[in-house]
Amino acid sequence: MALKTPQQYLESIKDNRVVYCNGKRVSDVTKHPILNITNRWIAMDYVMSNDPRYQDLLTNVDADGDRIAFALQPQRTREDLLRLREVVKLWARVCFGKPSGAKFVAKDGLNAVTVVSQRIDKKYGTKYAAHVEAYRKYLQKNDLSFAMGLTDVKGDRALSPSQQVQHKDFYVRIVEERPDGIIVSGAKTHISQVAACNEVLVAPCHAMKEEDKAYAVAFAIPVNAKGITMISAEPEIPEDYDLFDHPIAGSVYINDCLIVFENVFIPNERIFLKGEWEFAGQVAYMFANFHRLSAETYKAMELELFTGAAALMAEYNGIEKKAHVREKLTWLTMYTEMIETLGKAAVEHCVAEEGSDLVYPNPMIANICKYQFADNWHTATKYIQDIAGGIVATAPSAKDFHNPETHALMEKYFAGKAGIPTEDRLRMVKLIRDLTSSYEDVLTIHAEGSLEAQKLSILQLADFDRYKAAALRAAQVKNKKEHPLFDNLPQFPPEV
Amino acid sequence: MALKTPQQYLESIKDNRVVYCNGKRVSDVTKHPILNITNRWIAMDYVMSNDPRYQDLLTNVDADGDRIAFALQPQRTREDLLRLREVVKLWARVCFGKPSGAKFVAKDGLNAVTVVSQRIDKKYGTKYAAHVEAYRKYLQKNDLSFAMGLTDVKGDRALSPSQQVQHKDFYVRIVEERPDGIIVSGAKTHISQVAACNEVLVAPCHAMKEEDKAYAVAFAIPVNAKGITMISAEPEIPEDYDLFDHPIAGSVYINDCLIVFENVFIPNERIFLKGEWEFAGQVAYMFANFHRLSAETYKAMELELFTGAAALMAEYNGIEKKAHVREKLTWLTMYTEMIETLGKAAVEHCVAEEGSDLVYPNPMIANICKYQFADNWHTATKYIQDIAGGIVATAPSAKDFHNPETHALMEKYFAGKAGIPTEDRLRMVKLIRDLTSSYEDVLTIHAEGSLEAQKLSILQLADFDRYKAAALRAAQVKNKKEHPLFDNLPQFPPEV
Amino acid sequence: MALKTPQQYLESIKDNRVVYCNGKRVSDVTKHPILNITNRWIAMDYVMSNDPRYQDLLTNVDADGDRIAFALQPQRTREDLLRLREVVKLWARVCFGKPSGAKFVAKDGLNAVTVVSQRIDKKYGTKYAAHVEAYRKYLQKNDLSFAMGLTDVKGDRALSPSQQVQHKDFYVRIVEERPDGIIVSGAKTHISQVAACNEVLVAPCHAMKEEDKAYAVAFAIPVNAKGITMISAEPEIPEDYDLFDHPIAGSVYINDCLIVFENVFIPNERIFLKGEWEFAGQVAYMFANFHRLSAETYKAMELELFTGAAALMAEYNGIEKKAHVREKLTWLTMYTEMIETLGKAAVEHCVAEEGSDLVYPNPMIANICKYQFADNWHTATKYIQDIAGGIVATAPSAKDFHNPETHALMEKYFAGKAGIPTEDRLRMVKLIRDLTSSYEDVLTIHAEGSLEAQKLSILQLADFDRYKAAALRAAQVKNKKEHPLFDNLPQFPPEV
Amino acid sequence: MALKTPQQYLESIKDNRVVYCNGKRVSDVTKHPILNITNRWIAMDYVMSNDPRYQDLLTNVDADGDRIAFALQPQRTREDLLRLREVVKLWARVCFGKPSGAKFVAKDGLNAVTVVSQRIDKKYGTKYAAHVEAYRKYLQKNDLSFAMGLTDVKGDRALSPSQQVQHKDFYVRIVEERPDGIIVSGAKTHISQVAACNEVLVAPCHAMKEEDKAYAVAFAIPVNAKGITMISAEPEIPEDYDLFDHPIAGSVYINDCLIVFENVFIPNERIFLKGEWEFAGQVAYMFANFHRLSAETYKAMELELFTGAAALMAEYNGIEKKAHVREKLTWLTMYTEMIETLGKAAVEHCVAEEGSDLVYPNPMIANICKYQFADNWHTATKYIQDIAGGIVATAPSAKDFHNPETHALMEKYFAGKAGIPTEDRLRMVKLIRDLTSSYEDVLTIHAEGSLEAQKLSILQLADFDRYKAAALRAAQVKNKKEHPLFDNLPQFPPEV
Repeated sequence: MALKTPQQYLESIKDNRVVYCNGKRVSDVTKHPILNITNRWIAMDYVMSNDPRYQDLLTNVDADGDRIAFALQPQRTREDLLRLREVVKLWARVCFGKPSGAKFVAKDGLNAVTVVSQRIDKKYGTKYAAHVEAYRKYLQKNDLSFAMGLTDVKGDRALSPSQQVQHKDFYVRIVEERPDGIIVSGAKTHISQVAACNEVLVAPCHAMKEEDKAYAVAFAIPVNAKGITMISAEPEIPEDYDLFDHPIAGSVYINDCLIVFENVFIPNERIFLKGEWEFAGQVAYMFANFHRLSAETYKAMELELFTGAAALMAEYNGIEKKAHVREKLTWLTMYTEMIETLGKAAVEHCVAEEGSDLVYPNPMIANICKYQFADNWHTATKYIQDIAGGIVATAPSAKDFHNPETHALMEKYFAGKAGIPTEDRLRMVKLIRDLTSSYEDVLTIHAEGSLEAQKLSILQLADFDRYKAAALRAAQVKNKKEHPLFDNLPQFPPEV
Repeated sequence: MALKTPQQYLESIKDNRVVYCNGKRVSDVTKHPILNITNRWIAMDYVMSNDPRYQDLLTNVDADGDRIAFALQPQRTREDLLRLREVVKLWARVCFGKPSGAKFVAKDGLNAVTVVSQRIDKKYGTKYAAHVEAYRKYLQKNDLSFAMGLTDVKGDRALSPSQQVQHKDFYVRIVEERPDGIIVSGAKTHISQVAACNEVLVAPCHAMKEEDKAYAVAFAIPVNAKGITMISAEPEIPEDYDLFDHPIAGSVYINDCLIVFENVFIPNERIFLKGEWEFAGQVAYMFANFHRLSAETYKAMELELFTGAAALMAEYNGIEKKAHVREKLTWLTMYTEMIETLGKAAVEHCVAEEGSDLVYPNPMIANICKYQFADNWHTATKYIQDIAGGIVATAPSAKDFHNPETHALMEKYFAGKAGIPTEDRLRMVKLIRDLTSSYEDVLTIHAEGSLEAQKLSILQLADFDRYKAAALRAAQVKNKKEHPLFDNLPQFPPEV
Repeated sequence: MALKTPQQYLESIKDNRVVYCNGKRVSDVTKHPILNITNRWIAMDYVMSNDPRYQDLLTNVDADGDRIAFALQPQRTREDLLRLREVVKLWARVCFGKPSGAKFVAKDGLNAVTVVSQRIDKKYGTKYAAHVEAYRKYLQKNDLSFAMGLTDVKGDRALSPSQQVQHKDFYVRIVEERPDGIIVSGAKTHISQVAACNEVLVAPCHAMKEEDKAYAVAFAIPVNAKGITMISAEPEIPEDYDLFDHPIAGSVYINDCLIVFENVFIPNERIFLKGEWEFAGQVAYMFANFHRLSAETYKAMELELFTGAAALMAEYNGIEKKAHVREKLTWLTMYTEMIETLGKAAVEHCVAEEGSDLVYPNPMIANICKYQFADNWHTATKYIQDIAGGIVATAPSAKDFHNPETHALMEKYFAGKAGIPTEDRLRMVKLIRDLTSSYEDVLTIHAEGSLEAQKLSILQLADFDRYKAAALRAAQVKNKKEHPLFDNLPQFPPEV
Repeated sequence: MALKTPQQYLESIKDNRVVYCNGKRVSDVTKHPILNITNRWIAMDYVMSNDPRYQDLLTNVDADGDRIAFALQPQRTREDLLRLREVVKLWARVCFGKPSGAKFVAKDGLNAVTVVSQRIDKKYGTKYAAHVEAYRKYLQKNDLSFAMGLTDVKGDRALSPSQQVQHKDFYVRIVEERPDGIIVSGAKTHISQVAACNEVLVAPCHAMKEEDKAYAVAFAIPVNAKGITMISAEPEIPEDYDLFDHPIAGSVYINDCLIVFENVFIPNERIFLKGEWEFAGQVAYMFANFHRLSAETYKAMELELFTGAAALMAEYNGIEKKAHVREKLTWLTMYTEMIETLGKAAVEHCVAEEGSDLVYPNPMIANICKYQFADNWHTATKYIQDIAGGIVATAPSAKDFHNPETHALMEKYFAGKAGIPTEDRLRMVKLIRDLTSSYEDVLTIHAEGSLEAQKLSILQLADFDRYKAAALRAAQVKNKKEHPLFDNLPQFPPEV
């Protein structure tokens, strides 16, 4: 059977990859106290898929009789998407709201190149589709973890890739073509968990014009390939962190890296786009379409946890019956359930990509869901911080709680309502601090596309013809366009 | 066949009902310039159900071979609710956003007494269920329009019905019991379109305690019954209104009346609740459950019209490409589609009432949908007024536009973008004024329950056990309650 | 003494002015049931300035010993502005929130042309300043009411005046120059109370380029001049309105007119700008500067009334102790007092126009004040409608209340809390309906400049140099610009 | 002269105080890498008051000819408050938005006990006023830093101090009275910078009832007194932090401590309240009144820095001309200037405490200012994070930037717009992360009273009589109360 065990996964990433963190080269990522948070989080994918309770949900048996990850298969029906939603929910519930990232993001990139490679082949007679399928099989058979290398560092956002001033590597590009492959340079940023993965799948982050054709490139490569350097984000927590103090940050470190490509060789069979610039935007667009399910699904899981923390903290403080607290818990419940409902609706009303056999969530609903989640997040943090109190900012360290000299004082004075152990209250306080960190704020806004990106999508998807037809009829102005829903409706007001 | 024609309907309401409007007794409501707006709107129900294009959607053939309104039948499946949604959407699209009201509201009351009458019969051996079924058949066979008499005038909101100070009739009550029926007194307010209906179905608007048992009463009665007086809301528009100036208000006048009962006799066979005070709240609650579909469905139709008016007005003014206008149109689109999605999801995830064979929309989702609609409405009006400009407040009357002395000046100076007839622009301006009237504002907030009522429902429906289980696990605090979704999840972070 | 009595004012507007309303030419505006609302409101200016209790506040004695309106004098000091604020507050409190409009708007235009005329004279040797002073004296000595003709009809907002397609009169322009004056054509819209004034002062509504120099024109003219036609906005209320039903709309009708100029002759001595296109924007800009005091002052008076209505209605309904009602009353109080504070602060930190001896409110503060007022208005209406209940939309007419056949029923059933007369409750309901009308909404957003205009002003007035200096110092980045507040501050953190 | 140098201050806190941080007893707070951030921040008070450029602003010469801190003197006039505002602004601008805390908070407590001690003496013939004056002089003559011990740990917020279940020390209380003083026990929490101060001034945090009279206690004591233990909040940053990575957190560590009193002896001459329970709430209330100036003043300084960071980051990223960025910068500017205006207005319209010669900011305006600041903060963080991009969460450490192995890669790839050094961009990113930390969020909401506290104050201060008088007059309902502003206004509409 093709599934790796957690131990096999951990062994597989001891491969001399070049990773820097906090100013030092990390010789073995599995030994690094902070990076190992990421590794253990990724390892949960392997823990779960080897667990008989979840195996039927998480894996399929392929034609060879091997168990392979369901997430590495293309989704072809509404039922596939509904199952994928259950997969993501399980991943997220187990991992405190953040789905274990072994395949979570890059599977959507794999689907994107699946769709677009067929189109390029059709136009240019290339063989990209075969490359993608071979790669998909390779991932399945080796149960690999892989990261999505999407966002370029971009330099001046007002300039296109080839217009950049200081140098031309702000977007990953082809610097040389060889018979057996290409040489690429440039850097991608915010690449979640890449230092804990086996592979990275690279694709353009937006549409390109002809002058930017060198930047129209998609490929896959092991992260220990020659020329690749990864620099980890500054960790949020110290190396001697205590899980009590950082229940989330000590369990899930997404570890978004800068990944730099310095003249990295990509063999032909791993290339999925090479200069066909008119398709660059399609890859980015299709990635977003497929990735929406992921984002829309796990966020509701984060919110159930968030709302639960608010409700418990209110009780621990003895304020759960105050009118303003009830008002805030109501709001948080609405926020939680609205995101769950919209996320589910996006899948239930999924759409099929024309000329492909893949389906993805309804883009209008999915964009609304993501926008509502992100736009309301900071208000949610305001409410939970208001309920929890200043202690979120001022609680001493778990080390003080465990220090015999201070334990009794903290036990006595940080107690809340009678019957609630002080430790429970302090743990909840620490959870809330982690949930409302600057990191979470920024992730909420920028992961899966910014608020502005969602607004743009919504405007582009708006069915203005329908809206206008309704308004013109009510204003008794003739509609020059026909509209099936409004043409030939009975006259109103009627002549009776 | 049982269906009435519009003409038959209009004849049926010339029955000496006692209606006052603008200080005068209305001898024939079909002759009154304002009340006839309501009548014609109600008549659309009959126009549509007699139209072969819509008959299959709007009606069923009963066991006798008669066509009867689908809306007058109980909804027993998700498919029934989905069909009912299509019915409401058609009614709403035809009537400029407001479903024709012949059966629109009271059908939900009929379902409520259907469910609750069975429970009372079971407990007390009464025969209310048979009364309800007989009444339902009577409505079907005669294709009657009927209004829902729910909201009592209430007096001091801080006091219960029997505690009221000035008199005891602030809620409709039984003042006398007779062998053949009861005598009721009191008044209901905001009773939409009652003066244009054949019947009124009366039920308590909230739960009652034992001391208020005289107020636990539900029944149906023709609106021309002796002792009933209806006083219409002050009309928003003058009797010589021009449809150009008031495209909505001149087409749809909901005409919420005060309906007063002065010692009105209700025969036994039309009584559905009589003093069984512990069931009073259930009727109100079930009405709300069934009525949610209605509200959640038509509001998206109103919004498509609203958003279309904003988009057209932006074009007519030549500002459709301005960043702030695009931002507002994006917001309006999101608002429109979010309400549609939530309303649909409420039906798709409908619930069955225990011990009944009826289904209704998911209460959590439906309440969120209504709350979001109502809470955002005033922002929507701000945006459309901002786009349309001051002309919404200052446009002269259609009478000036049609006056030969001023027509040319208005034609010349109220023009917007070239190519758009001035008349079209003025009509759109007038539509927007109607859409953003104080009446619409208040309707949005108070119809189908106030914002506070929705908040209370959401809090009561919140699944705090689930939310707390998620938070406790993440904070590593033992959960004393078991929870199926979180018990026995694999340990995280894992020991690997 | 120069002051007119109310009667003299009313006589003065019987001058054959050409006014249309509701499709008819109005032969005498003082006889028209709706337009007379406006006239009586304007007349309050004369009532008050003749009242010994207010005369010292409202008027000054000029060099000739005549009493003249203080509002018609230029404001040269902070104390002048503070006094003007008191004047506007008195006007507003007396007239239910809307200052009587005899001089309220146009005085600010007069100050604008005072400043700009001096600049033009300086550059071109023209005599506009003398024209302005003569006109000011004429207004003072005759105690005239005058309106401000600012906003052009504009046609396609994306095109400049001379680019317009259908015709070239979308902005008022000079069509001919003569030795003794000019001929102008075009139209101004939303011209508040012009049909009830003696004069109109016309000025450009925004900056002009050289190709639009014919549109760079400012002048004053009696409203009964040949070629002027005024078309009134469609009245909100019927001619047989009852003041009980419309306590605001029946007392204050701003009556924004379309005023059309068809080849109107303007004598030289009333011209204040004639083709000096580079000054057109300055007139508009200075008008806005002076007018800010007016807007910022009266709005807080409207809000005290608004918040009072909410508080009373809560009591009348018996809900004043509910948590959500207290929350809303708190919000309304904050809104009211914040607008008052910001409006006052704008005057207390007023600025002097360089090269002029006039002062006006601080533009940054005044813009913030207006923006906050307008941006929050729709939320305020939501809250008051929520507190008042559906009755705001459904209350019958005062005619029904006064009809002996229905009076007793209404008296009985529209009662609220014991001790509150039903009539008081109904009057408050009607007040709230008037306060939350679509007209008030649109006025709030568009009068004194749209929300977008305020945002633009705030961005232009932002002191980014200061903000950036603070951020650069904290980020320990060298600031290449010097900044007096941040250069040479002591090092932080210190070396100790 | 009485002023201490920074060095003298640092020496003065080496006094064997009992402080714990991160699980260890800190033997010398001036040697602790994290606590020393606080010390250096406090030391800035001494740096500045010894700087001849600021001495006239920051200090006065007392009757003895000694220079003493102006902040330690009572404020008796509007001019005093305006000067104090300038003091706080200087402190805040120098220290990156957070005023150096040597006297910043506790001075307001000193004023509070000044006012209330006089009242108690008057009622009970006590000598508290003399105690306060002696203490004030002691502080002045020794230029001491002192912290305010206000907020009790509170246990169950639904229970009063004496009702608490687990123990009775959730609020600081008198456990024994002796001839020469009292013995106190209990704990105060969130006590800003107390571990870096010489003294702590303790007072009740809210009103007490008679059964809680043991909790009605106010006093001052050196922080190294026997029985006092301080436990520092968990530091946000590691001990080997780099100022580049943490420009704010590495410069200003407010270090809110839990301060525990275990049978601490307070000598009689340092007691300002001892069981006079009816005055407990007055101390808390007066502290809030005086402290408002502090909060309202420095917040605008924080915001100018915040808005500057947003503006610079927009430029560094090349997005400063995008419509949504301009919109956000406009909003941030408005927020900044509104808080400055409201804070200033609160001082300009200060009020005098009756029976005292002290003044404090206008409570209504000050509460509105604080509420607006706190309520909008999370939106501000959303906007700046949106502008800055995901890099706020994912930027590597300064150690990586300074590591020669990775410096060139970071230099190359983290560049933004040409002409902006990469280092500047990274520093700005780090500044924004610090500004949007969870700590800042919680501080904003909870420091100087929660949002709910401000709402309560605003409701209590609301002038409902005035608001209602305005509404009653407009609704033509007789006002049974007289109101000077509305009684005898002329009739409107007038009879003309």
